Amino acid sequence: MPITGEMLIGLTTVRGTDTPTQAINPATGETLGPDFPGGTPLDVDQACILAAAAFDPYRAAPLEARALFLETIAANIEALGEELILRVMAESGLPRPRLEGERGRTCGQLRLFAQVIRTGSFLNLTLDSALPDRKPLARPDLRSRKIPVGPVAVFGASNFPLAFSVAGGDTASALAAGCPVVAKAHPSHLGTSELIGRAIQQAVRDCKMPPGTFSLLFSTGNAVGEALVKHPAIQAVGFTGSRRGGLALVALAQARPQPIPVYAEMSATNPVFILPAALASRGAAIAESLVASATMGVGQFCTKPGIVLGLAGSSFETLSTTAAVTFSAATPGTMLNAGIHAAYEKGTAAFGAIPSVELLAQGLPSNGPSSAQPALFRTTSQAFLATPELSEEVFGPTTLLIACTTEAEFKVIAESLEGQLTATVHMDDADLPLAQSLLPILERKAGRILINGFPTGVEVSYAMVHGGPYPATSDPRATSVGAMSIDRFLRPVCYQNFPTALLPAELQAPTLPHSLDGKPA
Amino acid sequence: MPITGEMLIGLTTVRGTDTPTQAINPATGETLGPDFPGGTPLDVDQACILAAAAFDPYRAAPLEARALFLETIAANIEALGEELILRVMAESGLPRPRLEGERGRTCGQLRLFAQVIRTGSFLNLTLDSALPDRKPLARPDLRSRKIPVGPVAVFGASNFPLAFSVAGGDTASALAAGCPVVAKAHPSHLGTSELIGRAIQQAVRDCKMPPGTFSLLFSTGNAVGEALVKHPAIQAVGFTGSRRGGLALVALAQARPQPIPVYAEMSATNPVFILPAALASRGAAIAESLVASATMGVGQFCTKPGIVLGLAGSSFETLSTTAAVTFSAATPGTMLNAGIHAAYEKGTAAFGAIPSVELLAQGLPSNGPSSAQPALFRTTSQAFLATPELSEEVFGPTTLLIACTTEAEFKVIAESLEGQLTATVHMDDADLPLAQSLLPILERKAGRILINGFPTGVEVSYAMVHGGPYPATSDPRATSVGAMSIDRFLRPVCYQNFPTALLPAELQAPTLPHSLDGKPA
Repeated sequence: MPITGEMLIGLTTVRGTDTPTQAINPATGETLGPDFPGGTPLDVDQACILAAAAFDPYRAAPLEARALFLETIAANIEALGEELILRVMAESGLPRPRLEGERGRTCGQLRLFAQVIRTGSFLNLTLDSALPDRKPLARPDLRSRKIPVGPVAVFGASNFPLAFSVAGGDTASALAAGCPVVAKAHPSHLGTSELIGRAIQQAVRDCKMPPGTFSLLFSTGNAVGEALVKHPAIQAVGFTGSRRGGLALVALAQARPQPIPVYAEMSATNPVFILPAALASRGAAIAESLVASATMGVGQFCTKPGIVLGLAGSSFETLSTTAAVTFSAATPGTMLNAGIHAAYEKGTAAFGAIPSVELLAQGLPSNGPSSAQPALFRTTSQAFLATPELSEEVFGPTTLLIACTTEAEFKVIAESLEGQLTATVHMDDADLPLAQSLLPILERKAGRILINGFPTGVEVSYAMVHGGPYPATSDPRATSVGAMSIDRFLRPVCYQNFPTALLPAELQAPTLPHSLDGKPA
Repeated sequence: MPITGEMLIGLTTVRGTDTPTQAINPATGETLGPDFPGGTPLDVDQACILAAAAFDPYRAAPLEARALFLETIAANIEALGEELILRVMAESGLPRPRLEGERGRTCGQLRLFAQVIRTGSFLNLTLDSALPDRKPLARPDLRSRKIPVGPVAVFGASNFPLAFSVAGGDTASALAAGCPVVAKAHPSHLGTSELIGRAIQQAVRDCKMPPGTFSLLFSTGNAVGEALVKHPAIQAVGFTGSRRGGLALVALAQARPQPIPVYAEMSATNPVFILPAALASRGAAIAESLVASATMGVGQFCTKPGIVLGLAGSSFETLSTTAAVTFSAATPGTMLNAGIHAAYEKGTAAFGAIPSVELLAQGLPSNGPSSAQPALFRTTSQAFLATPELSEEVFGPTTLLIACTTEAEFKVIAESLEGQLTATVHMDDADLPLAQSLLPILERKAGRILINGFPTGVEVSYAMVHGGPYPATSDPRATSVGAMSIDRFLRPVCYQNFPTALLPAELQAPTLPHSLDGKPA
């Protein structure tokens, strides 16, 4: 399939008329063809009008048809084969095995959501029997279900060019919920976006879904994204990226005549607490795994462990030394784009310039235009608490060791943290009381808590929560990964005293899971 | 129980130090003792610090203890007996039967939520089995549950001094979710608020819940409410009232360093569509019931039918004439306070001043300081579409008949509407096709859709949705009435690879409803 640089608006292809952008290979700095001319607010309007027109028929399609549609998208992505993998490698600097895995995750996610659609559990079918003889007032028949909110704007993320971009979690969950999607391609992987967009567009055709079920727009500046969030047809926004970017979208969405929800997954330092017995018994092993987690994928995961706490003493020195040795041998890696690389350089330089922070180790030197040298820092709990900048995420292969002087400081630091995607505890049996006392704090701070593991690697499953209190996300009630992510794009509607012929089919004589008078049925 | 004018901060009573307010009997204009001196931001801080301290122990209490606590609140409210009823009557101008009914609803709501707590269904327990042998990567054990968001600020509503005030739906659902509550009393019913607050405070004592589980504050101006929404301990806000008030709280909540969700139930005109066959066969009967619904409780319901659409012609004239005759005989009623009465006078005067709007009938004349004279207006579909002011809610005993010229206009007007709490359709069998074509639009516009009924009277049940798209509420994903209202105050947390001893009890070997690997268990 040729990459043409055209946007996809419904079933048509549209060449943008605004400034063209090119994709750039971050490993070489060279430009990859073709040009991707940007869209205009008029293109946004056209895509949104089509999405609005698609909404009622798309949501009215049988659940089985919606499930098949998601499965067709997955199959069409797989059918792109080697062309896709080569293009993503060139645009992202990420290696083949990672991208083959990410493609598997993306398609697996679509297929999992297809299964969820078939169960109908997300519809939350709820029935209250009529009580015609109740005194003083009869109770009418009441039935409710969740319906999709309307067309959703999806902003592709740079760090998962497949799994959190055009056909990623936000798109998959919005489509699963019954919402048409208007996606804005991330400028870091435009060709990838077009290929994936065409796979979705073809699935719309294959499955005879309404034309406006999906559109894909390109843009150099912010005009298209802004117009998209402001468009009256758009009813929710999905975003994964920087805190600044996420907050800008939230502000736009709140300033609309009709404000809408924004699900922005933004930033986290993903604290790791290494409790004393675990530190003593296996500090060195933890250090090695920790470095692997912090440098994996050039540290470009939302869940990268950014701060690591342990009790000062000989065991901490062992951990620290092992981490330093491991970091020193860590290879540099090409970051996703020049901007992200520049931010990494700036962030590590800022950490290094703080007098109370020691640069403990650096990995092997950079070897290309956007190549990042891993960096390990160390500080004390007092310095950490006194230096707010140290709580800021540095996106890339770096982490900060924090030597605490008392066990009580674990709780003080946990309480001081902003909202997090994850919090991790390493513990042995003897650490159980301390872990138990930390847990309520960590529950308040994070969407996912791990024991004796590492936060990178987010399972796409039923129980997964990839979310958390602000500023990890803009909405702590939601997850952007896993089956529950579909719930973000739904709202409840109650049907009172409906004749059977007018009721939505799934509420007439429910065969899908439902509750009747408060009891599962 | 004497009404002292004191605020309740945790288990203590605190006399405010700011400007005192008095309750006023809206029927007579006379002041009711005692003084209620207002709180200060320091009182807010104290209540919120206590609430934050109560949060972890309150949410850790067994579900049965939490359920008993809600039931104890209900019993303590009932134990207030006649004293409560007399005070609410004096402060609200509402009649005894309505208030006895509202007390029943308030206590019934607490007891329903106690039952919901016992089922544990709202915890959304979700388990994914570990797959240690999965290739290429093992899957860890993943378990998730919903936990409460944290302390909740509740703003009492004027129009339900019991069911949507200090112990009303927002408080009951927040406490049911596991969130401490800091309530701000509505200045229209201060004595009622204190009595109810004392019943809750006593329940905190009776059930040995943490002292900060509940606090009640008074205030004349906005300082206390603002400080409350801005307080870092507060994690969500519940509000029922005007659009202006709700939007002010949303803006405050969004401007916090950590933005928080606001559930504001604000305004609606609750359109009623009378389809042709129903209009022809029983227009007069519909008119009579409609007037009863529009004037019940002096029209002071969020769900009052404010606009009524029918096809122009002889049947519409019958409906219109019957409505006018019935309205003409409608008695005036005392509104909740002088401000609400003034807004009603202003709103009906504004409608009357629009040239394309006819004042069709007025009820019997006002007979007291805050007494409202019912008013029935009529206009055409063209005038309605051309006059945005006619889409604004006028709170009180008034409604607007709209004569449409074509059936297609039903859909045009439905599409033109802002978000609504309810939409109602009156239909006979012959109207089914038209109703079916209207339904997708109404689903997009309203939280609850009724057939052949009237929207006033909101059942507290499992399937109820009292919510809807903006500006009916600030958050279309939520309901503020019914069992699902508890979900507003929850967020998901995932536990990865936890040793059994550290898992929350309900996730260890679940006995409550849960799902396992995507299947109900």
